[in-house]
Amino acid sequence: MIPAEIIQHKRDGKALTADELRFFIRGYTDGTLPDYQMSALLMAIFFKGMDLREISVLTELMLTSGESMDFSHLNAYVADKHSTGGVGDKVSIILGPLLAAAGLAIPMISGRGLGHTGGTLDKLETIPGFRTGLSLDEFRQAVETIGIAMIGQTADICPADKKIYALRDVTGTVQSIPLICGSIMSKKIAEGIQGLVLDIKTGNGAFMKTAEQARELADHLVRIGQDFGVKTDPVFTSMNQPLGRFAGLWCEMLESFDCLCGYGPADTMEVTYTLGSKLLFQAGLAADEAEAIELQQKLITDGSAYAKFREMIHNQAGDVTILDDPTTLHQPACRQDFTAPVSGYIQAMNTYRIGLATVSLGCGRLKINDSVDPTAGMEFLRKIGDEVSEGQVLIHCFNSDSGKLQEALSLLPGAITIGPEPASHQLILK
Amino acid sequence: MIPAEIIQHKRDGKALTADELRFFIRGYTDGTLPDYQMSALLMAIFFKGMDLREISVLTELMLTSGESMDFSHLNAYVADKHSTGGVGDKVSIILGPLLAAAGLAIPMISGRGLGHTGGTLDKLETIPGFRTGLSLDEFRQAVETIGIAMIGQTADICPADKKIYALRDVTGTVQSIPLICGSIMSKKIAEGIQGLVLDIKTGNGAFMKTAEQARELADHLVRIGQDFGVKTDPVFTSMNQPLGRFAGLWCEMLESFDCLCGYGPADTMEVTYTLGSKLLFQAGLAADEAEAIELQQKLITDGSAYAKFREMIHNQAGDVTILDDPTTLHQPACRQDFTAPVSGYIQAMNTYRIGLATVSLGCGRLKINDSVDPTAGMEFLRKIGDEVSEGQVLIHCFNSDSGKLQEALSLLPGAITIGPEPASHQLILK
Repeated sequence: MIPAEIIQHKRDGKALTADELRFFIRGYTDGTLPDYQMSALLMAIFFKGMDLREISVLTELMLTSGESMDFSHLNAYVADKHSTGGVGDKVSIILGPLLAAAGLAIPMISGRGLGHTGGTLDKLETIPGFRTGLSLDEFRQAVETIGIAMIGQTADICPADKKIYALRDVTGTVQSIPLICGSIMSKKIAEGIQGLVLDIKTGNGAFMKTAEQARELADHLVRIGQDFGVKTDPVFTSMNQPLGRFAGLWCEMLESFDCLCGYGPADTMEVTYTLGSKLLFQAGLAADEAEAIELQQKLITDGSAYAKFREMIHNQAGDVTILDDPTTLHQPACRQDFTAPVSGYIQAMNTYRIGLATVSLGCGRLKINDSVDPTAGMEFLRKIGDEVSEGQVLIHCFNSDSGKLQEALSLLPGAITIGPEPASHQLILK
Repeated sequence: MIPAEIIQHKRDGKALTADELRFFIRGYTDGTLPDYQMSALLMAIFFKGMDLREISVLTELMLTSGESMDFSHLNAYVADKHSTGGVGDKVSIILGPLLAAAGLAIPMISGRGLGHTGGTLDKLETIPGFRTGLSLDEFRQAVETIGIAMIGQTADICPADKKIYALRDVTGTVQSIPLICGSIMSKKIAEGIQGLVLDIKTGNGAFMKTAEQARELADHLVRIGQDFGVKTDPVFTSMNQPLGRFAGLWCEMLESFDCLCGYGPADTMEVTYTLGSKLLFQAGLAADEAEAIELQQKLITDGSAYAKFREMIHNQAGDVTILDDPTTLHQPACRQDFTAPVSGYIQAMNTYRIGLATVSLGCGRLKINDSVDPTAGMEFLRKIGDEVSEGQVLIHCFNSDSGKLQEALSLLPGAITIGPEPASHQLILK
């Protein structure tokens, strides 16, 4: 096979055969095909897409490039949750322990902050001692013994995806539905799960800007899940404003503790319960959403979700004593408020700009090797629909680098639209 | 500047700024930008195109990546001809000496066979001793002293184009009008010419399949020529059948000798005269096409075109004595005829297939390091519109490798359409 001809087939809108895809993905992974041919193919896929058969083959090739977990011997429903990413989205940290407390097994592999969005791993790593880099054996053992582990991607799982993702990141080919689909699903399927719930975010702070794109991505993910025997349910949620009270690192952990103890903000809990209900229903532990929400509320109220969270932290070498007085840790050295320039109702929040401002504060990375500031974050005191007066504090910003704080604040003017009309925000989309 | 962001700009259909293009082209040429980012950008350009300003900047960057010639001190109109490539197209070999005999200075840099088409350099190199690899100094001196030199691309001229072209060749990004335009024009402008005539070929044996694509390419080339002060005239000719009596290597040289001595086939001469007329008119040596054709015919009849050709061969170390008995050289060891399967009129010739068959014979290359067979070629005894009887010889095939001869013949059935209706072929298109 001639690589340039395979590239031309995709360039000209043809579906690639399984043989062509295998030749290209295997060749690239083992180093016999050069980066420059893979990046040309990725850009052609960006423009011409892939049909479901091609995505399924791509997923299989990524999956079989590495190891897969097998939890079929467990007497538990094995499941995971994936979010397409947003600002203030700490739901994995809450939902994982909550579902493990319900008896599900949760082998969760998460990512770091990407672009303007935060990353579960970066947040978890603010817990002193917490290890996100377990070996596959440690990961397996954690899931088998306590029902949950939350780790980062390892070299053993989907190395083809890892290599291709790194190339996509530097060649403008991240935003391609078939490539996103193959990348997400290969890693999830490798976890050995039976069920998956997807938080598909849309809006001005999401990677998918329109409901149509989100719907297309969800359709593809669900059908690839079916192909590989993973029951997959999508939930569509809005990223037209940050989720919850905080966006940042340690501050999001504090919000997560609150959520697990029954004091979480309504929006964070609504997304958590909606996603959790899908998996509890899949697992046969609830007959409908109302029953599933009731079960989740009970597990929070009786302390078992929070106890499971402490158990997981301890099991991954995290310092659980810090949870007894969490507000003493990671105190920001610098603080500044962003206030309302006029009076009125908040009409809209430019969540992408706000996300970029959190990255400027030190919550995320522009380059892969940038370091993060665990003290950094924002507290959102007012959101869409709230009535505000001129000079009232809208966002409380904090970190430990005054230069970066100013840089972040310089991004905020104009990011919040205030007008005379009342406004509303729909969180869960149908 | 962040390379991935520049790629994304083009991917999203934006015009790149001069700074962005400079950053990318210079960075790639000096090795600071990796080929995988360049190939992603090239594929994005393939899909999203470039406006004339971008193409002009691209051309300038390629041009200034290397040396340029300057013939402004010569008391002659300095000009060249470019063809977009075809089967049996030996016009450069005839037109160069013919125009030099008319007093023009012709610094011609040509290419090798590409895909299914033949290459001027491969044909010239069948002359024993002939050097196509002159240094820039030798090239300059040849043009100054005898008015013509025909060489291959050197490392000094447009190295950025050379590096980018090699990448395009292996990443499915050759067929992009802005990239073709930048590549052609940078090299031609580097020759230090005042005038350029373009043979834009269309039809089933051309790279541009439709009149619309050909027109677009021509428009772009002419306007880039204008930007750089090179008077550029396009001529549109058909590649719906091979040009002339022969397609191959030494056999095309023999046809070229015939043309320069006044015995050329009508179609080859028509294209030669049409192209030549444009440059003679530009140079002020003819008032109109009729006068220009008369001048060219005179230069052939009086032997001065042929004499200039001998002078050029001698000047580039070729063995001129071979011209006195040219049919003794490069005699093919194998010959076989392709005959008409039915009686009727030739309706169409699949010139792309015929071109591929000449490559199979040994006239061109599939890979850059393939060697060519100087004895290889085809003689076309009948063309579109000719009446033929079943079993009559249509194409005479020859080379010095019987296996390759069979391979070439296997491509020919179906390549010539014969039907009951008379048919015609328009060579020069308006």
